[in-house]
Amino acid sequence: MSDTTSNQMWGGRFAAGPDAIMEAINASIGFDQRMAAQDIAGSRAHAAMLGATGIVSPIDVEAIRKGLLTVLSEIETGTFAFSTALEDIHMNVESRLTEVIGTPAGRLHTARSRNDQVATDFRLWVRDQLDATEAGLVALMKALLTQAEAGADWVMPGFTHLQTAQPVTWGHHMMAYVEMFSRDLSRVRDARRRMNESPLGAAALAGTSFPIDRHMTAEALGFDRPMANSLDAVSDRDFALEFLSCASICAMHLSRFAEELVIWSSAQFRFVTLSDRFSTGSSIMPQKKNPDAAELIRAKIGRIFGANVALMMVMKGLPLAYSKDMQEDKEQVFDAADNLMLALAAMEGMVRDMSANRDSLERAAASGFSTATDLADWLVRILDLPFRQAHHVTGALVALAEKKGCDLPDLALDDMQGVHEGITEAVFEVLGVHNSVASRLSYGGTAPMRVREQVARWQEILG
Amino acid sequence: MSDTTSNQMWGGRFAAGPDAIMEAINASIGFDQRMAAQDIAGSRAHAAMLGATGIVSPIDVEAIRKGLLTVLSEIETGTFAFSTALEDIHMNVESRLTEVIGTPAGRLHTARSRNDQVATDFRLWVRDQLDATEAGLVALMKALLTQAEAGADWVMPGFTHLQTAQPVTWGHHMMAYVEMFSRDLSRVRDARRRMNESPLGAAALAGTSFPIDRHMTAEALGFDRPMANSLDAVSDRDFALEFLSCASICAMHLSRFAEELVIWSSAQFRFVTLSDRFSTGSSIMPQKKNPDAAELIRAKIGRIFGANVALMMVMKGLPLAYSKDMQEDKEQVFDAADNLMLALAAMEGMVRDMSANRDSLERAAASGFSTATDLADWLVRILDLPFRQAHHVTGALVALAEKKGCDLPDLALDDMQGVHEGITEAVFEVLGVHNSVASRLSYGGTAPMRVREQVARWQEILG
Amino acid sequence: MSDTTSNQMWGGRFAAGPDAIMEAINASIGFDQRMAAQDIAGSRAHAAMLGATGIVSPIDVEAIRKGLLTVLSEIETGTFAFSTALEDIHMNVESRLTEVIGTPAGRLHTARSRNDQVATDFRLWVRDQLDATEAGLVALMKALLTQAEAGADWVMPGFTHLQTAQPVTWGHHMMAYVEMFSRDLSRVRDARRRMNESPLGAAALAGTSFPIDRHMTAEALGFDRPMANSLDAVSDRDFALEFLSCASICAMHLSRFAEELVIWSSAQFRFVTLSDRFSTGSSIMPQKKNPDAAELIRAKIGRIFGANVALMMVMKGLPLAYSKDMQEDKEQVFDAADNLMLALAAMEGMVRDMSANRDSLERAAASGFSTATDLADWLVRILDLPFRQAHHVTGALVALAEKKGCDLPDLALDDMQGVHEGITEAVFEVLGVHNSVASRLSYGGTAPMRVREQVARWQEILG
Amino acid sequence: MSDTTSNQMWGGRFAAGPDAIMEAINASIGFDQRMAAQDIAGSRAHAAMLGATGIVSPIDVEAIRKGLLTVLSEIETGTFAFSTALEDIHMNVESRLTEVIGTPAGRLHTARSRNDQVATDFRLWVRDQLDATEAGLVALMKALLTQAEAGADWVMPGFTHLQTAQPVTWGHHMMAYVEMFSRDLSRVRDARRRMNESPLGAAALAGTSFPIDRHMTAEALGFDRPMANSLDAVSDRDFALEFLSCASICAMHLSRFAEELVIWSSAQFRFVTLSDRFSTGSSIMPQKKNPDAAELIRAKIGRIFGANVALMMVMKGLPLAYSKDMQEDKEQVFDAADNLMLALAAMEGMVRDMSANRDSLERAAASGFSTATDLADWLVRILDLPFRQAHHVTGALVALAEKKGCDLPDLALDDMQGVHEGITEAVFEVLGVHNSVASRLSYGGTAPMRVREQVARWQEILG
Repeated sequence: MSDTTSNQMWGGRFAAGPDAIMEAINASIGFDQRMAAQDIAGSRAHAAMLGATGIVSPIDVEAIRKGLLTVLSEIETGTFAFSTALEDIHMNVESRLTEVIGTPAGRLHTARSRNDQVATDFRLWVRDQLDATEAGLVALMKALLTQAEAGADWVMPGFTHLQTAQPVTWGHHMMAYVEMFSRDLSRVRDARRRMNESPLGAAALAGTSFPIDRHMTAEALGFDRPMANSLDAVSDRDFALEFLSCASICAMHLSRFAEELVIWSSAQFRFVTLSDRFSTGSSIMPQKKNPDAAELIRAKIGRIFGANVALMMVMKGLPLAYSKDMQEDKEQVFDAADNLMLALAAMEGMVRDMSANRDSLERAAASGFSTATDLADWLVRILDLPFRQAHHVTGALVALAEKKGCDLPDLALDDMQGVHEGITEAVFEVLGVHNSVASRLSYGGTAPMRVREQVARWQEILG
Repeated sequence: MSDTTSNQMWGGRFAAGPDAIMEAINASIGFDQRMAAQDIAGSRAHAAMLGATGIVSPIDVEAIRKGLLTVLSEIETGTFAFSTALEDIHMNVESRLTEVIGTPAGRLHTARSRNDQVATDFRLWVRDQLDATEAGLVALMKALLTQAEAGADWVMPGFTHLQTAQPVTWGHHMMAYVEMFSRDLSRVRDARRRMNESPLGAAALAGTSFPIDRHMTAEALGFDRPMANSLDAVSDRDFALEFLSCASICAMHLSRFAEELVIWSSAQFRFVTLSDRFSTGSSIMPQKKNPDAAELIRAKIGRIFGANVALMMVMKGLPLAYSKDMQEDKEQVFDAADNLMLALAAMEGMVRDMSANRDSLERAAASGFSTATDLADWLVRILDLPFRQAHHVTGALVALAEKKGCDLPDLALDDMQGVHEGITEAVFEVLGVHNSVASRLSYGGTAPMRVREQVARWQEILG
Repeated sequence: MSDTTSNQMWGGRFAAGPDAIMEAINASIGFDQRMAAQDIAGSRAHAAMLGATGIVSPIDVEAIRKGLLTVLSEIETGTFAFSTALEDIHMNVESRLTEVIGTPAGRLHTARSRNDQVATDFRLWVRDQLDATEAGLVALMKALLTQAEAGADWVMPGFTHLQTAQPVTWGHHMMAYVEMFSRDLSRVRDARRRMNESPLGAAALAGTSFPIDRHMTAEALGFDRPMANSLDAVSDRDFALEFLSCASICAMHLSRFAEELVIWSSAQFRFVTLSDRFSTGSSIMPQKKNPDAAELIRAKIGRIFGANVALMMVMKGLPLAYSKDMQEDKEQVFDAADNLMLALAAMEGMVRDMSANRDSLERAAASGFSTATDLADWLVRILDLPFRQAHHVTGALVALAEKKGCDLPDLALDDMQGVHEGITEAVFEVLGVHNSVASRLSYGGTAPMRVREQVARWQEILG
Repeated sequence: MSDTTSNQMWGGRFAAGPDAIMEAINASIGFDQRMAAQDIAGSRAHAAMLGATGIVSPIDVEAIRKGLLTVLSEIETGTFAFSTALEDIHMNVESRLTEVIGTPAGRLHTARSRNDQVATDFRLWVRDQLDATEAGLVALMKALLTQAEAGADWVMPGFTHLQTAQPVTWGHHMMAYVEMFSRDLSRVRDARRRMNESPLGAAALAGTSFPIDRHMTAEALGFDRPMANSLDAVSDRDFALEFLSCASICAMHLSRFAEELVIWSSAQFRFVTLSDRFSTGSSIMPQKKNPDAAELIRAKIGRIFGANVALMMVMKGLPLAYSKDMQEDKEQVFDAADNLMLALAAMEGMVRDMSANRDSLERAAASGFSTATDLADWLVRILDLPFRQAHHVTGALVALAEKKGCDLPDLALDDMQGVHEGITEAVFEVLGVHNSVASRLSYGGTAPMRVREQVARWQEILG
């Protein structure tokens, strides 16, 4: 492209000049209108408190209350006209309130500033996301429990390095994800508890000389208490960063599971069949089923953790108290939250719909002498062989089976005794994949009995 | 929030069930419609080639050409109805083309796949951004040159550790950024040269058995050549990552300059006055001028580099060829490009508008015995003192000046000779901030003469 | 550099061939020897349990116990010879144990695998870091409390956009950081509680058929309980990621404070004087004091959060259970932990040593009509003016003071009444920076009284 | 752990007090000694120039030259005693030089500062890494060419979504990576060209009043020219960031290939057999071969891109010129460079050693009606069916083959004509995987002929 063209493009984009550029970079109403409900909730709490403390007259407070309800209803019904010239959601709401109720609207901003107002709105918004994440995690865990209960004794390969290592049960594998998502749940709950403090009343940054009651507004908005330092209250974005941290680790778990689903759906594995609803097909290759939803979920960690990086970078080295840089916080969190919810919902749907291919799973589990460690453990446990000798004997038996073209449980007892005379009929109790998994009864082990105990425990916890 | 409420929120968000979830996570038309012009340009080039090679009849090709122009015009005039059910921009355009011209539309997709189509569209889009970045960088560099030329001999403190180290010139400081942005320019041009290859004709991933002419479509779309490997052509997103890398380093430069502008605008520094157009004021504190644009520019590196992280993470470990994960590439690049352009334009505007406060700059430059190194260098250069001794003498003279409450150039020659008898009248030629900067004549040094040479060099290069 | 040279360099680096390359990329003993104490603690707990459950004989268990103490002592005294050929810390210890006690050493690995062993070692190591972080945070908070108590009523400017907005107190500013670090403390404690579960006994991935007692080893190692799923136990690195997340947010807080210290140390601000111990000087410019430690602390977020990115990227998309990729977890956490501890210690030292320059602070606080909002609030609160009118009156008074070249508290009452006749003598109670801060008595406000309450509260909490 | 214990640990770590903390955070000699050769090369060039310009006497210059060679030799032979008290490599070398040659050593630092010195050293070090990366990439590309040439006509599945889409050739797949790594090569060369400018002579930040010849030192050190702005010269770390960007994209390519190798090595795929040298086995499961090197390579992108994040974060918002924060640049680049070289070498070794399992590849390629698109294309190309109708006919034929339990080429012509009467014997020329790949002759297509052309082209380029 010639310089002329690219200059025109450049010029064209910003033809309207400096004012247009400043408006484009400065105004936040394009995105912060998503906090309209939170903004009005905050204003209602603030107005009620101004009334209760006698800072504003009951008549004005009542006018404000009604006016705010009107504005909220206009926004909810889509009749509200957002204005970029009014920059942000706070100014848009306040301006409309003035149109609706006149002079009393001017009292609402008493003992308040946009700094504590936006901190309050955003905190309320993030709190809602923490609640929604909690709900999404619980729903996904329940879907996993259903799979785990059904397949508590289905046998599949347990992999290390994507190489078959030992047989495990389908239920056990599903329950591993229940544990992972339960840690996400725990993190989300801790984050919510920690962030549930009210910045409202911090004013611009120093607090106020009006006799406000911050405990009252905190309680009205469902906060546990007011924040204890007004400078911190307007400077802090930990709550957003902690949400993004939790979301990132959760998205990492989702990406691991999604990777497994993609691999398991390949023609080479065929461990699961995903439902048509979460796949796409080919008009001419009917057996082809692309795991689109799983791939997209696998990718979501990118933008969610990218948002974490973005906000961490924005906050790095910012002096107290409010700097305009912090306006960059919201779009990152909005995008990360939307995509986390979508990924959780899609994963829940996929888990509910998917079918394990029991035959493929069991066949794969039985291949590759996957019970060799069971045999070695038996030699130690029952015959009291030292570990190294047990390994030696096992290696010889595997070599024998390989030579005979059979698996370990197919060896005759005679053949086994030829390698080590102490071996008895009882050895067959641990060979074969079903015997193998049934024997792993240690706490947290893959035995169906242990899996069912864990399913029951989690069903009780999740209700 | 009680479990009931959060579950309702969760449920409400995805009440429409699995199909709605899949559509929400799978459809890209919500964002990839930004590539409509590129998509149609690609289709026009492809259709013309299908005609020239005899794969499709001239009549059908002409129908396709006209139909595509109709569709483009509908999109440009805003009458086109985008459909989420049709998933992406490619299907939306093709579907509308079928409505407009009927059967011949079905010939357009011959010897093509959505895989090479989206790779082509996106590459064209990114190429436009590289061109726009180039134009934006040139405009910003010109604004800096104007500042540098005007202030080639204005003296200001050169800082290390934000402590005054040596006097430099305003022009020299501005030219440091010209160098930084010139490297960005160079990177952008290299990236453009490297990425300017056509994926079109790679088809799904293996190429095609149709006798297509990939060189023809490449040329028609302004590409230097077709890509040499069809698998790579549909799997590659290096061009997007390299754009994001270039954009990130550029944004880092912008953040450094923005940080300086914020600090320089403080009441404590008062080095510059930003124009009202890029600041906001206070209704009751008329002297307060918040450097909003500078702060927002400082923050932009967050989302731009965040996008880099996001896409790098998406691509990590993806097997060849196309995986649906790669659909997550576009929104990141769109957002980064929009914000980079905005930041460049805002910085250009600020630089054009800002006024250096020459008095504050010079006063600050002269404080703190900032010419002590000039004195030490003079002792080495003229009196041939060893370095360490020169430092010792200088320290003693600084201590003397401090005791007398004056600066180095205010010391009497007698006093100086009391410390070291070799000192002559000539020493005053390097003391004083103007003498200091004028003496630093080494190539690339801060002397006004050197600065003017660099300004002239860059004016000639940029035209 | 010519191709020849660079090829030689390349070749030279890996001249030893494939085996050397594999050893270089594969062996972890170069770094995981830092977990030697944890590895031996884990082995001691495991051995004791094997004895208690009768899996290994009391005699062998006693031999193992004594042998492990010998090995530990060799490592602690530096006489242990680590071997790269033995790959990792587990093999190094086991191999030496065999040399020391012979055959019984072979019993130690019964019902255990390197997978659960490394998971246990690393978890113990990270737990120690969480404890050390807690101690470091408490020490830093105490240093801040000391500053806050001393300067509860020292006045300084409260900034927004690095522009003076309202006066605040030094103590209030220090306490903002106490709040920030207290959230870090809270996060660290939550993380510790969540991660304090034992993976030991998960064996390779499926649990074991030996009748082990995982609750016993968990208790012996100070864990609250064994992990409930063996697959999860060997696949999970959440505890490392959560430590890195906590460390990153903490490092972000440190970078904000460090940025303030760098700016405050500039000749233009002179808000604080850092001690010589945490600065470096210049041999010839005695007044120059570079805030090196503050700058290095400001930078530490880079590598700490970089480690977070690194590990998140490693874990992204990894199928269960153990993959060798996970060996990349330790160096990142080691480096982040070391640097976080260093940054916390250096910040504590700087805070203990630094002196606030009360005069500079108060002078800066008083400039720029910083009590204009106090005046406006007074007009609303006492004269009951509507907000907009109060702003109008305040603007006029500020303009008057600017014209007279004085600050607001220097205006005569007459002059004020000329602008609004309702103004009374009482207005002076809120003008002047000391009056201003004293009036901000809202909960969490900057009034010295409130600051002292918060200091007392935290002193009691921290003990 | 009780508070006491953790406090002891905390205290123990920093028991030596503030001085030890400052030394630990401030000294860089622990890592920057890796730049010793570069530091001495820079000093030699500087000294020669000081002599040539008459700034220092020939005798002193000669003493310095000899002294530096002595110091270099001490470092190379490991007899040099590095001292932490001397902080960095520059001071360590200069101090030792003074011991060796006495007074003349004091002349070396004339017209130089540690700021331009470290910038020069680090730039030289990074330049060496760019050269080594180039060599490593070329070696890897050659290994890939060898694989591609051998397997130009071996057939394997081409995947989208990890589902078989169309047959491709092994050679074509290898050549896709040659293209990817060739872009890395091109990026590395551009980066080297851009960064090859000398900061030496920028002095502290402003240039110098000594009549130095920066072009002479630039040439002596192999730089193309001196940097044009002294402030920029000491503030710039673009060269390090650009190296990290290039390294990150290269590591991403490596991670994609490594992922494929891990999947291809699974029992389910068995597409390749990795050599024992880059895998590890199991003592009791002889067929198990863990692809350790591939997994570790897959993980390396974490730390390499993590280093990119770290340095970008450090540089974000740093005012000019030198800040101590920038000392954090080196360890990140060192670690990233070491690991990139290791990953390239390990990948080259693996590629050289690995064997494709031709039977498995071909069997997989032929499954799933992978030539359905060939059939559809044939119907369009030969019978001139519209695209949609061709898809319909193909779908019917696939359904027929599925019903008969055979693949497409196994259908009888009669059966085919029953679905569409126009089909002729010629159709079999595109069915079957070998016919399929041979037909994809478009430029960049998978046909063996095209692959061989590309192999030849690259062999000529790489020499």
